[in-house]
Amino acid sequence: MENRQPDVDPAVVATADDIAAMRTRGAATIADAAAKALATQAERAETTQPAAFERQLRAAAETLYETRPTAVSLPNALRYVLRGMDGETVTELRATTIARAEEFRAELAQAQQRLGEVGSNRLRDGDVVMTHCHSTDALSCLEAALEDGKEIEAIVKETRPRKQGHITAQQLREWGVPVTLIVDNAARRYLDEADHVLVGADSIAADGSVINKIGTSGLAVNARERGVPVMVAAQTLKLHPDTMTGHTVEIEMRDETEVLADDQRADITGERDDDGLIVENPAFDVTPPRHVDAIVTERGQFPPESIVTLMRELFGETTGEPWEP
Amino acid sequence: MENRQPDVDPAVVATADDIAAMRTRGAATIADAAAKALATQAERAETTQPAAFERQLRAAAETLYETRPTAVSLPNALRYVLRGMDGETVTELRATTIARAEEFRAELAQAQQRLGEVGSNRLRDGDVVMTHCHSTDALSCLEAALEDGKEIEAIVKETRPRKQGHITAQQLREWGVPVTLIVDNAARRYLDEADHVLVGADSIAADGSVINKIGTSGLAVNARERGVPVMVAAQTLKLHPDTMTGHTVEIEMRDETEVLADDQRADITGERDDDGLIVENPAFDVTPPRHVDAIVTERGQFPPESIVTLMRELFGETTGEPWEP
Amino acid sequence: MENRQPDVDPAVVATADDIAAMRTRGAATIADAAAKALATQAERAETTQPAAFERQLRAAAETLYETRPTAVSLPNALRYVLRGMDGETVTELRATTIARAEEFRAELAQAQQRLGEVGSNRLRDGDVVMTHCHSTDALSCLEAALEDGKEIEAIVKETRPRKQGHITAQQLREWGVPVTLIVDNAARRYLDEADHVLVGADSIAADGSVINKIGTSGLAVNARERGVPVMVAAQTLKLHPDTMTGHTVEIEMRDETEVLADDQRADITGERDDDGLIVENPAFDVTPPRHVDAIVTERGQFPPESIVTLMRELFGETTGEPWEP
Amino acid sequence: MENRQPDVDPAVVATADDIAAMRTRGAATIADAAAKALATQAERAETTQPAAFERQLRAAAETLYETRPTAVSLPNALRYVLRGMDGETVTELRATTIARAEEFRAELAQAQQRLGEVGSNRLRDGDVVMTHCHSTDALSCLEAALEDGKEIEAIVKETRPRKQGHITAQQLREWGVPVTLIVDNAARRYLDEADHVLVGADSIAADGSVINKIGTSGLAVNARERGVPVMVAAQTLKLHPDTMTGHTVEIEMRDETEVLADDQRADITGERDDDGLIVENPAFDVTPPRHVDAIVTERGQFPPESIVTLMRELFGETTGEPWEP
Amino acid sequence: MENRQPDVDPAVVATADDIAAMRTRGAATIADAAAKALATQAERAETTQPAAFERQLRAAAETLYETRPTAVSLPNALRYVLRGMDGETVTELRATTIARAEEFRAELAQAQQRLGEVGSNRLRDGDVVMTHCHSTDALSCLEAALEDGKEIEAIVKETRPRKQGHITAQQLREWGVPVTLIVDNAARRYLDEADHVLVGADSIAADGSVINKIGTSGLAVNARERGVPVMVAAQTLKLHPDTMTGHTVEIEMRDETEVLADDQRADITGERDDDGLIVENPAFDVTPPRHVDAIVTERGQFPPESIVTLMRELFGETTGEPWEP
Amino acid sequence: MENRQPDVDPAVVATADDIAAMRTRGAATIADAAAKALATQAERAETTQPAAFERQLRAAAETLYETRPTAVSLPNALRYVLRGMDGETVTELRATTIARAEEFRAELAQAQQRLGEVGSNRLRDGDVVMTHCHSTDALSCLEAALEDGKEIEAIVKETRPRKQGHITAQQLREWGVPVTLIVDNAARRYLDEADHVLVGADSIAADGSVINKIGTSGLAVNARERGVPVMVAAQTLKLHPDTMTGHTVEIEMRDETEVLADDQRADITGERDDDGLIVENPAFDVTPPRHVDAIVTERGQFPPESIVTLMRELFGETTGEPWEP
Repeated sequence: MENRQPDVDPAVVATADDIAAMRTRGAATIADAAAKALATQAERAETTQPAAFERQLRAAAETLYETRPTAVSLPNALRYVLRGMDGETVTELRATTIARAEEFRAELAQAQQRLGEVGSNRLRDGDVVMTHCHSTDALSCLEAALEDGKEIEAIVKETRPRKQGHITAQQLREWGVPVTLIVDNAARRYLDEADHVLVGADSIAADGSVINKIGTSGLAVNARERGVPVMVAAQTLKLHPDTMTGHTVEIEMRDETEVLADDQRADITGERDDDGLIVENPAFDVTPPRHVDAIVTERGQFPPESIVTLMRELFGETTGEPWEP
Repeated sequence: MENRQPDVDPAVVATADDIAAMRTRGAATIADAAAKALATQAERAETTQPAAFERQLRAAAETLYETRPTAVSLPNALRYVLRGMDGETVTELRATTIARAEEFRAELAQAQQRLGEVGSNRLRDGDVVMTHCHSTDALSCLEAALEDGKEIEAIVKETRPRKQGHITAQQLREWGVPVTLIVDNAARRYLDEADHVLVGADSIAADGSVINKIGTSGLAVNARERGVPVMVAAQTLKLHPDTMTGHTVEIEMRDETEVLADDQRADITGERDDDGLIVENPAFDVTPPRHVDAIVTERGQFPPESIVTLMRELFGETTGEPWEP
Repeated sequence: MENRQPDVDPAVVATADDIAAMRTRGAATIADAAAKALATQAERAETTQPAAFERQLRAAAETLYETRPTAVSLPNALRYVLRGMDGETVTELRATTIARAEEFRAELAQAQQRLGEVGSNRLRDGDVVMTHCHSTDALSCLEAALEDGKEIEAIVKETRPRKQGHITAQQLREWGVPVTLIVDNAARRYLDEADHVLVGADSIAADGSVINKIGTSGLAVNARERGVPVMVAAQTLKLHPDTMTGHTVEIEMRDETEVLADDQRADITGERDDDGLIVENPAFDVTPPRHVDAIVTERGQFPPESIVTLMRELFGETTGEPWEP
Repeated sequence: MENRQPDVDPAVVATADDIAAMRTRGAATIADAAAKALATQAERAETTQPAAFERQLRAAAETLYETRPTAVSLPNALRYVLRGMDGETVTELRATTIARAEEFRAELAQAQQRLGEVGSNRLRDGDVVMTHCHSTDALSCLEAALEDGKEIEAIVKETRPRKQGHITAQQLREWGVPVTLIVDNAARRYLDEADHVLVGADSIAADGSVINKIGTSGLAVNARERGVPVMVAAQTLKLHPDTMTGHTVEIEMRDETEVLADDQRADITGERDDDGLIVENPAFDVTPPRHVDAIVTERGQFPPESIVTLMRELFGETTGEPWEP
Repeated sequence: MENRQPDVDPAVVATADDIAAMRTRGAATIADAAAKALATQAERAETTQPAAFERQLRAAAETLYETRPTAVSLPNALRYVLRGMDGETVTELRATTIARAEEFRAELAQAQQRLGEVGSNRLRDGDVVMTHCHSTDALSCLEAALEDGKEIEAIVKETRPRKQGHITAQQLREWGVPVTLIVDNAARRYLDEADHVLVGADSIAADGSVINKIGTSGLAVNARERGVPVMVAAQTLKLHPDTMTGHTVEIEMRDETEVLADDQRADITGERDDDGLIVENPAFDVTPPRHVDAIVTERGQFPPESIVTLMRELFGETTGEPWEP
Repeated sequence: MENRQPDVDPAVVATADDIAAMRTRGAATIADAAAKALATQAERAETTQPAAFERQLRAAAETLYETRPTAVSLPNALRYVLRGMDGETVTELRATTIARAEEFRAELAQAQQRLGEVGSNRLRDGDVVMTHCHSTDALSCLEAALEDGKEIEAIVKETRPRKQGHITAQQLREWGVPVTLIVDNAARRYLDEADHVLVGADSIAADGSVINKIGTSGLAVNARERGVPVMVAAQTLKLHPDTMTGHTVEIEMRDETEVLADDQRADITGERDDDGLIVENPAFDVTPPRHVDAIVTERGQFPPESIVTLMRELFGETTGEPWEP
C-alpha cells in the first residue's frame, strides 16, 4: 500500500493493514477498529496547528477508508467520528474527536441490545414471526421479546442457497421458540399464519431501500399483498452513507456451486462443457421502501422513507469523500 | 373392493382395480383408461332397455370413480363421456357413448401438442420465459415455439424442495435453449429480465384458481408487481369438475425429509427428539385468478375467470356425483 | 290496469294483480307465481295456431312483467320459461312451456339448499366467517357447513342503519355458532381474524357487479387489502337479466329516519327547520367484480366476471323486452 | 392470385379481388362482402354431394380469407357463416348457409345501433365521459344516451399523433354536447371530473385484452387508479377469433412523420442525417382486462374476462384455420 | 401514592395527584399542568448543585409521569421541557427549564388555531370534506377555511357506536356548513363526491401509523381506492414519544353496551345467559402511513412517514424513560 | 410600488423593481439576486442597534418578496439567508448574514452540477431513461452519467402541448445519446424498455408531492404499474417553503391556442362562435409521493416523503411570513 499519507500514525496504518488483509473483518469489528484508530491518531497527533491536526485526522481517515471502500460500516464510522471533531484549538479538537470516537464505540457495543428492545416492543405476546436468512439483529428482537416474557412462534424460511434459516432455527430452538421450517417457495402460503415478517439488512440506502439476503424483496411484496407488516432490524452501522449521494450498492455475485454442485450440473448438461447453462447467484436483492413498514435500529424505529434523516444526523450531508469536511 | 355394482363389466372392474392399485397411474393414463372402460361397458352392456343401459353405464362410472376419488382426471373423463350418452334406444345410446369415449381419447392423445401450439402463439421471437417446477404442458409451449423458429431464452427457478427445475433445465438444454438457473429466492430480481412467467398446473378450480407446485402463487404476485404476464399451461384434463360445486382441492403434505434431511435436523435440534421443530412441506399452493393472465389449453386460451365456462361445456353442471345424470 | 292484452287468461290477470298489489311479494314468491301463471296460460290457451299460442304466452308475460318492472326475479322467471317454449305445434309448444315452468319452479324450491351445499364446500372446518347484513342465502352456506360437521365461527357486523346483523346473530346463536358482534366501523380490524367474508346479494349485474346492502363494497375493498376472500351467496333468481343490455340497477333511497330519528335531528339542528342538514340513506351499493372472489349459486360457483355466461344460458341474450322472442 | 381453389364461384373470386385490392375496405364492409360471397357460393354450388358442397364452401372461405389474413373482421365473418352450415343434404346445407349469411349481414346492419343502446344504458343523466381517439361505436353510445334525453358532457383527449379527438369533438358539438378538449398529458388531472372513460377498440383478444389506439392502456391504468370505470364499445366484428388459439395481434407501426415532420426533425438533428434519432409510432396498444370494466357489444355487455365465451358462441373453437371444420 | 421521590415540590405532588385522580384531564390540560409543575419545581428547587437540580427535576418528572403512564400528552410535555434544561449552573438550568416550560405552554395555547390555518391551506373554495367521528383539531381546519371565506360542504359519517358524527354535524351546522349525514356503511359510495377525507387522531406513532377512532383505517383504505386524499389533523401533543422505541399504542376496549344494549342482547340470545355471543368494542384502530396523505400539525404539514423526524426534534431520541437524560 | 418600507437600501429596491418588472427572471436568477440584495442590505445597514439591523433586513426581505409572491425560489432564498442571521451585535449579525447569503449563492452556482452527480450515481451503464418535457436538472444527471463514461439511451416523450421533448432530444443528440422519440400516448408501451423515468420539477411540496409539467403524474402512475422507478431531479431551489404550512401550489392555466390553433377550432366548431367547446390547458400537474421513488437534489437524494425534513433544515418552520423571525 504505497502513497501513504504523511503524518498518519503507524497504529492507524497497522489497523488499515489489518482491515485490508481481512484480519479485521465483520461490519462491527471494522467500524470499532476504525473509530479506535482515529482516536489514537487524535491522541498522538504532534502539532499545535488546528489545521494541521485536522489534516492529519482526515489523512488517517482516508488511509483507513481506502482499504475496503465497499465495506458499509467503514465510511460510516469515519464520517461519524470526524463529524464530532470540533473546536478552535488542537486541545479542543483532540478532546472532541476522542470523545466522539469513544461515544461511537460505546454505542456500538450496546447497539444490538438496544435495537432488540426496540424491536421487541413491536411484538405482542403470542405473535408468530416469519424470518428470512439469519440475522443477529433480527434475532435480538426475538430474544428481547422472550426476555420480556412474551410467547413467540417462528416460521423460518430455509433461505436457499446457503440455508442460513437452519442457523436461525437452531438458535430459536435453543431459546425454546416453536419453529416451523419451510422452503422459501412456501412463504406466501404461511404468511396467512404470520403476524410479522422480520428480517435483517446487509445495508440500507438513503432512498429507503433495504439491501438484504436474496429473497427478501419477493417476500416483502407477498407480505404486503397478504397484509402482514414487514420489520427490518438493522443497526445504524448498516446505513450506507454513500447512498445519500445517489450511489447504488453493488450486489455481490457469489459462486455458482452454492446453487448447483458440479455433479448436479453434469446431470443437467451431460458430459459436455455447456456454456448455455448459466447459474446466477446474487447474494442480495433490493426491497423498495413501499414494501417495508419499519426499520428498527438502536436509535429507535423509522419508516424506511425517513431513514435518510437519521443518516444526515449521524453522517452529515456526505457530498464529499468520507474523510473530507 | 366389496359392494360391486351389479352388471358392471369385468373389464371395467379390472380397469378400476388397476387404478386403485396404482398400476394405472398418471392423470392422462387414468383418464384414458376410464374412458376406454366406459366404451367397453357400452359395447358389452346386455340389455334392450334404455334405462337399464344408462344404469349400467352409471354403475360402471361409479365403480371407476370410487377407486381414487381425489384424482382430478378421473371424474373429468367420466363426466365428459356420460355427457355424450344420448338417444332414445339402446342402439343410439351405445353408439353415442362409444363415440364420445373415442372422441375423448382422441383429443387426449393430441391435447399436449395442440396446447403447445396455442401457448407458442403467445410467445414472440426473442422472448425470455421464467419457469417454475417442471411441467410437460409448459414445456410443450416452448417446444412449439422453437419449432416455429422462435428464439427463446429461459430463466429456470430450481424449485425447492425437489428441484424439478433441474429437469426443466435439462430438457431445455437438449433443445438448445439458453438457460439461466436461479434459486427460487432470486425470482423477483430476474423478473425484470423476463417477458413471461410460464407454469403448468396440478389442477384448476372453477373460481379460476390455479393449484400448482408450491411457490407458484408467490411468483405470480411478484410477476404482477413487476408487470410480467403469467401464463398457465394446462390441458383440460386438469380442470377439476368438483370445484364447480365449491369443493376445494386438497393440498398434499409431503414428507418432511424432502425439506430437511435427518442429519440436518440433528444439526438444528442436537441429539434430542425435538417436537418443537416442525417441518411443513405442502406440495402445492393456490394462485387466485387475479394474478394469472391466461390459461392455455388444447381448446384455446382463457382468462382464468372464464375457465368455468369451459368446464360447463365439457362436464355440465356437476351438481350431482360424477356418475349421476 | 287498463290496456289489458287480449287472450290473457283470467288466472294470469289475477296473479298480475296480486303482484301489483304486493299481495304476492318476495323475490322467490313472485318468480314462482309468474312461472305458474305462464304454465296456466299454456294449459288454457285456446288456439290451434302455434303463432297465436306464442302470442298469447308473450301477452301473458308482458302483463305479468308490467306489474313491477323493477323486481329482478320477475323478468328472470318470464325469460327462463319463455326460452323453453319450443315446437312446431301447439301441442308441443304447450308441453314444452309447461315443462319449463315446472322445471323452473322445482329448481327454485331446491335452490337455496343446493346453494348452501356449494357454499359450504368452500368452507373448512374451523373457519371464521365475517358477515354483513342478513341473507338467507349466505346463512344457508353456514347451515350446510354445520350439517357437514364443520366448526364455524362468525364475526357479525351489525349493519347500520337497520342492524340486520342482529337477525344474523340470532340465527347463528340458535345454531350454536360462536358469534362476535361488532360495529361496521370495526370491520377492518377484525378482518385479520377472518378466513372469509360471506355476504348475500340484492341482485347481480352482467358486468359482474354485486348489488348488495350498503357497506358491502367498502367491506370488500378492505377484505382484498387484508387478503381475505369474499364470497357472495346468491340464487340465480338474483341475476338481473336487464343488466345484460347495460341497464344499471336503481338504488333505493330509504327513509332518513332510519338513520336519524326526529329527536336526534332536533339535537343537531335545534328547533329550526334546517334544510342544510341532509340525510342520505341508500339501501344498497355496488361492488365491482375485482373485489369479489366467488359468487355461489345453486348451479355452482362462478368468478363474478363469468356470471354473464350463466345469465346467457338461463335467459338468452335479452336484447328485447322480457316477453319478446 | 394464382393457385385458385377449384369450384370457387367467379363472384367469390371477384369479391376476393376487391378485398385484396382494397377496393372493398373497412371492417364492416369487408365482413358484409365476405358473408354475401359465401351466400352466393352456396346458391350457385353445382353439386349433389354434401361433402362436395362443404368442400366448395370451405374453398370459397379460404379464397376470401387469404386476401387479407390480418383483417380481423374477415375470419370473423367466415367462421360465423360456416358455423351455421348444417344438414344432411345439399338442400339443407345450402339453406342453412344462406340463412346464416343473411343473419350475419342483418345483424351487422343493426349492430352499431344496438350497441349504442346497450352503452347508453350504462350512462346516467348528467354524466361526464372522457373519450380517447375517435370511435363510431363509442359515439353511438353517446348518441343513444342523448336520444334517451340524458344530458352528457365530454372531456375529449386530442389523441396525438393524429388528433382524432378533433373529429370526436366536432361530432359531439354537432349534437350539442359540451366538450372540454385537453391534451393527452392532462388526462389524469381531468379524470377527477369524469364518471366514465369510453373508448372503442381496434380488436379484442380472447384473453380479454383490448387492442385500441395508442394511449388507451395508459389512460385505463390511470382511470383505475382514480376510481373511474372504463367502458369499451366494440361490435362483435372486432372480436379477433385467431386470438382464441393464442395468436397475438400484430401492432401496426405507422409513418414517423405523423409524429415528427421533416422540418421538426431538422430542428433536432441539424443538417446531418442522424440515425441516432429514431421515431417510433405504434398505432395501437394493448390494455389488459384488469383495467377494463365492461365491453359493450350489440349482443350485450361483458366483463373483458368473459368475452372469450361470446367468441366461442359466435365462432366455435377455432383451433383450425377459418375455413376448416 | 407511596414511595414519593425526595425533594419533589409539594405543588408538583399536588398536580400529580390531580392527574391521577382525573381531576385534571384531557390531553392538553394534562400537558399544560405537567409543564407548569416542572416550571414550579425549577423555580423552587433549593440547591446550588447543578447535578442535584437536575435530579430534582427528573424526580418531579417521574412523579408526574407515573400518575398516568398511558396518557400520550404527559411524556410528551415532560420530554419537551426536560430537553430544554441546559446550562452549567443552577441559575442557568433554572432559567432554561422555566423558559422551555413557558414556551411549551405558549405554543400549546396557540396550537389548535395554527394547526387550523395549516389545514385550511390544503382546502380549496368549494371543496367537499368527509369527516369521521368528532375532532376539534379537524374542525379547526374547517373553521379556518370558513374564516378565509371558502365555501365548504361536509359529508359526515355518523360514527357508530357513539355517533360523535352528530356532534360534528351540529358544530358544522352552527357554522352554516351544508351537511350530508350518512351511516358509516355508506362511506365508499359518497367518497365519489368528496375532495378530502379529514380526521383527527388519538395519537400518532413513530412509524407513521395514525391511531384514531375505530373505522378510520377502513375509511382510509377506501379513500385510497377511490382516489380521495386523507388528511389527519393532530397537534404535536398527539405524537406518541414512546412509539419511537417501538412501543405500540394500547387500544382501549370499551363497554359492550355501547354496541348492544341489554334489551337488544336479549332479543338475540333470548332469556339465557349466552356467552357464545361476544361483543367487541375497540375504541380505536391503526391506519398505516401508506393510506394517509398528510398529517397537519401546528408546526406544519408532514407526510406520515416523516413525522418521526418532528418527534425527534421535539422529544429527542427517547431511548430512556421520559424523565431520564 | 408605494408603501416602501423605511430604511430599505436603494439597491434592494432596485433589485425588487427588476424582479417585479420581470427584468430579473428565472428561478435561479431571482434567488441569486435576492440573496445578493440581502447581503447588500446587511453591508449598508446604518445602525448600531441589533434590533434595528434585524428590522431593516426583514423589511428588505419583505420588499423583495412582495414583488412576486408566487415565485417559489424567492421565499426560498429569503428564508435561507435570514435563517443565518445570528449574533448579539450588529457586527456579528452583519457578518453572519453576509456569509449566509454568500453561502447560498455559492451553493446555487454549483447546485446543478452537484445534483447531476447525485443523479448520475443512480444510473448504471447501459440504462435506458424515459424523459418527460425538458429539464436542465434532469439533463444534468444524464450529462454527468455520460461524463462518467456510462452508455445511456433515452426514450423521449414529445410532451404536448409545447413539445419541449424536442429540446430534450436535441440536447441528447448533441451529446450523442441514442434517442427514441414517441408521442405521450405511447409512454406505457415503451416503459417496458425503460430502466428509469427521469423528470424535473417545477416545485416540490412539503407533503412530498411533485409539481411538474402536465403529464408527469399520469406517467408516474404507469411507471409504478410497470415496475419502473421514477426519479425527480430538482435543486433545493424548487422546494416550496409555503407548502410546509399547507399551502397548495397554484397551477398556471395557459393559453388555449397552445392546444388548439384558431383554424383547428374553426374546423371543429364551424363558423359559429361556440362556447360549448372549452379548451383546458393546465401547465402542470401534481404527482403524489407514493408514485415517486427518489428526489435528487444537490444535497443528496431523498424519498419524497422526507423532503420536508430538508425543507425544515433549509428554511426553518415557516409558520410566519418569509421575512418574519
